Amino acid sequence: MSERLVVALGGNALIRQGDRGTITEQAARSLAAMAAISQTVTAERQLVITHGNGPTVGNILIRQQLARHVTPAMPLDVCGAESQGNIGYLLERALTQVLRQRGIQRPVATLLSLVEVDPHDPAFVNPSKPIGPFLSAAEAEELGRSVPVARDAARGFRRVVASPAPQRIFESAAIEALLAAGVIVITLGGGGIPVVLDSEQQLSGVEAVIDKDLSSSVLARAIGASNLIILTDIDYVYLDFLSAQRRAVQRMRVSEAEDHLRRGEFLPGSMAPKIEAGIAFLYSGGQRVLIGLPEELPQLLQGAAGTEISP
Amino acid sequence: MSERLVVALGGNALIRQGDRGTITEQAARSLAAMAAISQTVTAERQLVITHGNGPTVGNILIRQQLARHVTPAMPLDVCGAESQGNIGYLLERALTQVLRQRGIQRPVATLLSLVEVDPHDPAFVNPSKPIGPFLSAAEAEELGRSVPVARDAARGFRRVVASPAPQRIFESAAIEALLAAGVIVITLGGGGIPVVLDSEQQLSGVEAVIDKDLSSSVLARAIGASNLIILTDIDYVYLDFLSAQRRAVQRMRVSEAEDHLRRGEFLPGSMAPKIEAGIAFLYSGGQRVLIGLPEELPQLLQGAAGTEISP
Repeated sequence: MSERLVVALGGNALIRQGDRGTITEQAARSLAAMAAISQTVTAERQLVITHGNGPTVGNILIRQQLARHVTPAMPLDVCGAESQGNIGYLLERALTQVLRQRGIQRPVATLLSLVEVDPHDPAFVNPSKPIGPFLSAAEAEELGRSVPVARDAARGFRRVVASPAPQRIFESAAIEALLAAGVIVITLGGGGIPVVLDSEQQLSGVEAVIDKDLSSSVLARAIGASNLIILTDIDYVYLDFLSAQRRAVQRMRVSEAEDHLRRGEFLPGSMAPKIEAGIAFLYSGGQRVLIGLPEELPQLLQGAAGTEISP
Repeated sequence: MSERLVVALGGNALIRQGDRGTITEQAARSLAAMAAISQTVTAERQLVITHGNGPTVGNILIRQQLARHVTPAMPLDVCGAESQGNIGYLLERALTQVLRQRGIQRPVATLLSLVEVDPHDPAFVNPSKPIGPFLSAAEAEELGRSVPVARDAARGFRRVVASPAPQRIFESAAIEALLAAGVIVITLGGGGIPVVLDSEQQLSGVEAVIDKDLSSSVLARAIGASNLIILTDIDYVYLDFLSAQRRAVQRMRVSEAEDHLRRGEFLPGSMAPKIEAGIAFLYSGGQRVLIGLPEELPQLLQGAAGTEISP
């Protein structure tokens, strides 16, 4: 009896605030994340690992910008694809190593992923997802001539892009074939590369960022996963998060999660999309959503840490 | 009765000499290459597409170098992984589009690939494969303090790295599972990311470049392909190539190819590794090696263009 898990890792699994972003740091963080995940690998489990890409694609964007007078800058979809290569490689290398060191014979494969979005998605009207480095007022003015830029809280200006809803993962069938063959799959880096398909079947990249938890939910539904596990930098889902009386949630039903979401208990762009991703998954036949820390993944699966949302 | 083909595309399939390297050019070149390949897709054929990455990884290296004071530069293995993301995405997008436009229902997937090399490979003693941009004497002197640099023919200086022999493709089993499920696979970008495995099962990247035709041959053997098809910028294999009396070869046996190779008829780093790749493939059970132009692929398969090497 096999169970199929989708595990979504935060973008800070490879580069954290305060890191310089060197390869040494990234390789060490990849190993730590994959060591935790390797503890959950059993013969009965089919496993898909998805991941964010925030700091990595930020560095790629900085390089594009600084070198643009020497070699043409690539659009955001290509930068996202490069980040899938960068992070996917480090995760696959780390996971292959830790599995071998634990004597587990399971192949690993990293797939690029193209995710269809609707060109009429309302998100395109008002781009609001901040990406790339913080900018000075002068830099923001210059960059703002070609792309939208917004002030990000108290920390300065950043480029903003649309964050449209994921509609379909083009590689779902390939991922299912790999899982059925016992391969552990790393995919959906940065939420996937956003593409649009027109009536002539022309496929084009778009300059947008898809929320990785929402696209992980779309994938989990497409492949009939039983568990969607969202690993992040917080130990529980909290109610009344920003107050001193915040309360950790150990278990809730999907209907309770919906109520809390509607009342605005969860931060937009942070916990809210994770809860939305979980709700959509549970309403389409998913059995369990788990949210917690990467290093507590084994306890999370046993119900001894983190938040569980059930149908 | 299905046949399994490995088609290796030259690195200039996406960026050619004289191109500026813009996304518009790369997208158009990807579509042209995939349009040719799509003509060979039949229900009976399982297809793996491999590709070079020369100009693309060159641009990534330029960006790393120019931005290194702002964000840490990545080593060559990570740059190679980023190029697999960049090129793989554009090829997958283009192939998905042309297949849909031709009404062919076949999924496409792009896999990163890690290729094991021997840390004691003699290639590491004397790095000789030029990579990245041409350098002025001053730039060469600066870069030469940290990595080997050599004069490249009459065109200036370039960084040089080792080009070790590929030993094993880590994703072979995953690729077989995808092919068996009817998925067209894009992989082995730039010849694969070179890694070494030590006695503690530690897996590390190395700063080297693997010849993509040699690694395509290793993959073709691992998955029991019948045909290895090497697409390049020349219409035939030639004997006496550099003379005015050069002769195109339409067909030759593997023993003849070996004789010509031994006599130095083929240019090192150019046609010689393609012939070596073909010989190794044919001696391990391969049925046919084809070498020719991407735009003549359908004729190549019919024996109406290019060079065929048989067992």
